[in-house]
Amino acid sequence: MKNVFLIITFLGVISSYAQENTFPEGTKPASTNVIGAQYPRIDSERKAYFRINAPAADSISVSLGNLALTKDEKGVWTGVTKPLDPGFHYYTLKINGVDVDDPNSETFYGMSRIASGIEIPEDGVDFYDIKDVPHGNIESHWYLAKSTGNMRLAYVYTPPGYDKNTKERYPVLYLQHGMGEDRRAWGNQGRANFILDNLIAEGKAKPMIIVMEDGGIAQGFGSPKRPQDKNFWDSFEDIMIKDLIPNIDSHYRTLSDSSHRAIAGLSLGGTQTYQISQSNLDKFGNIGIFSAPFGFPGIETGYNGLLKKPEEFAKKVKLFYVSMGSKEGARSGRSTHEELDKAGIKNVYYEAPGTAHEFQTWRKSLYGFAQLLFKD
Amino acid sequence: MKNVFLIITFLGVISSYAQENTFPEGTKPASTNVIGAQYPRIDSERKAYFRINAPAADSISVSLGNLALTKDEKGVWTGVTKPLDPGFHYYTLKINGVDVDDPNSETFYGMSRIASGIEIPEDGVDFYDIKDVPHGNIESHWYLAKSTGNMRLAYVYTPPGYDKNTKERYPVLYLQHGMGEDRRAWGNQGRANFILDNLIAEGKAKPMIIVMEDGGIAQGFGSPKRPQDKNFWDSFEDIMIKDLIPNIDSHYRTLSDSSHRAIAGLSLGGTQTYQISQSNLDKFGNIGIFSAPFGFPGIETGYNGLLKKPEEFAKKVKLFYVSMGSKEGARSGRSTHEELDKAGIKNVYYEAPGTAHEFQTWRKSLYGFAQLLFKD
Repeated sequence: MKNVFLIITFLGVISSYAQENTFPEGTKPASTNVIGAQYPRIDSERKAYFRINAPAADSISVSLGNLALTKDEKGVWTGVTKPLDPGFHYYTLKINGVDVDDPNSETFYGMSRIASGIEIPEDGVDFYDIKDVPHGNIESHWYLAKSTGNMRLAYVYTPPGYDKNTKERYPVLYLQHGMGEDRRAWGNQGRANFILDNLIAEGKAKPMIIVMEDGGIAQGFGSPKRPQDKNFWDSFEDIMIKDLIPNIDSHYRTLSDSSHRAIAGLSLGGTQTYQISQSNLDKFGNIGIFSAPFGFPGIETGYNGLLKKPEEFAKKVKLFYVSMGSKEGARSGRSTHEELDKAGIKNVYYEAPGTAHEFQTWRKSLYGFAQLLFKD
Repeated sequence: MKNVFLIITFLGVISSYAQENTFPEGTKPASTNVIGAQYPRIDSERKAYFRINAPAADSISVSLGNLALTKDEKGVWTGVTKPLDPGFHYYTLKINGVDVDDPNSETFYGMSRIASGIEIPEDGVDFYDIKDVPHGNIESHWYLAKSTGNMRLAYVYTPPGYDKNTKERYPVLYLQHGMGEDRRAWGNQGRANFILDNLIAEGKAKPMIIVMEDGGIAQGFGSPKRPQDKNFWDSFEDIMIKDLIPNIDSHYRTLSDSSHRAIAGLSLGGTQTYQISQSNLDKFGNIGIFSAPFGFPGIETGYNGLLKKPEEFAKKVKLFYVSMGSKEGARSGRSTHEELDKAGIKNVYYEAPGTAHEFQTWRKSLYGFAQLLFKD
């Protein structure tokens, strides 16, 4: 009986392999492809090779460098990008002017849509690879947010051993995604769980819980607010302070004092981190700002004037970490760091070499930040 | 500062709304749409309305009934399906002959690809809705499978209270997806977690752990087998028996005798359930077969001849549940049920009214199966 399934599967495999049985030398399928998809492929120079069978299409381009593919006499479209930065990149295809996802790629919520993504390996960098070490879990955690009246979903990373060490309590990092992304981004695109698994296995980071929520972006149930709604921004602060933190502290074995709680975010999530942390220093004793060009409240008035009182600020904030990619403008982090330094506010600054406003910058930022967190 | 983000967000919202500010009467966006997407929409007759702005495309069709959209003078393509069956349906768009996903839809792994999906509500049916009840978690569980030599990922549902009731042990259901799907299907498409959350809240099902693995489909790490490889089928049995079950029993607080372990699956997963259960009745005392047209081993030789010995079979198998949708052929379940009845093998048969080889059948099958499981 099972042969019927085998035959069906075979036919699919044969048809997808028949179109191409030799591949450009030195290339491998991207790890972000769906199972079995041979394209896009990546070579050792970090160029990506595309190949799409579409005889009836009149134009196909790839958003990575706006690469126009060319069509051969059989209707197969091919093209090769310039060398791409290492790390994860969103992309889409444009087929006859319509922006669509690449059927060969796994999909990722980003750019306010479901997008394709391509992972470009970085030589010698494996801190976000999955390894044979104890693994924590990312779990879906539904809870009723009274401030919005709807059920909301947070993704929660619990570190290796959390289920076994039932007497142990853990510090918590609230980790925010960027604009047009959601709770899935730090796990799927950022590989936050593998970064922590590996750091914890090497003894470089304390086991911690990571909570990933939706930054106030409307969720698909109930009647949530959208950015254009009144008090949208305040309402995420309400969700975080009045609903999410108490819920996490009651459902997970947390250490609930401010020195064992951190908030960090990338881009828009960094802006939110500034906003929420400055009015809630009793809740957050550790702050991480990754590539946030907007939102630094300034030395004069920020953090209720505490940035002018370095000693008082240091009593409340154990770690103030600012980062960006070296291809970003100074405003995304370096200028904040310099202002903080000038004001005598202790801070840690990191600049990811050779990367832009992308996840490789933020993976490396988390890698550095997590190693400094919760060191008693 | 934050106004800059607001303006950017506003522009996006305005441009996407400007194209259409009136909608067909009585329609609502599908719940499977990405946040903010107004199309596809569904009316009270379960028809789906599509609208895609694509002036440069020459042809667009939707795989739901192979609906060809029509283009207006502005380059906007629209079309309405016939009434669709309730429940979840995979679909894709064909744009100038290229099968792609709908950028307006969340994506789902099925049909051996990343596909779009549309949820059609069923009047009066809410057993898979998310409600204000205690929620279990679905967590990603990585483990090293020695029989394949690679890290594998299972999705594990733990019921509400699992983390709190640290003295309690739970029965386990191993729940398999269909062909061309993976570990994500039962949660994302099947809403298995909400089905169990709701049943448990009503006291209709015992709290249980559900383990969802990949049915032997190659996973993206290491060098896993593919269906065309030698011993592919046996190797999934190896993974299940030698790796997955021992791992789950050591990492979770399980009841590990066969009467507290179940295996079930849909379609190809049902075929696997037949195959694995019949040679491992010491492991599985509860069996569920949902819409599996292939794999029933027959009364004469199946289950090592035990189907000819109803009393002995009943001592080993507490529950044998067979189901299918009424729009499927008898071979998908009814004929198996009839053969079992004729042989005097106690079994429970369920036929989902008015649905086909689709998730609405399997959601209802799980809903029925779970209520009968693990009743001591």
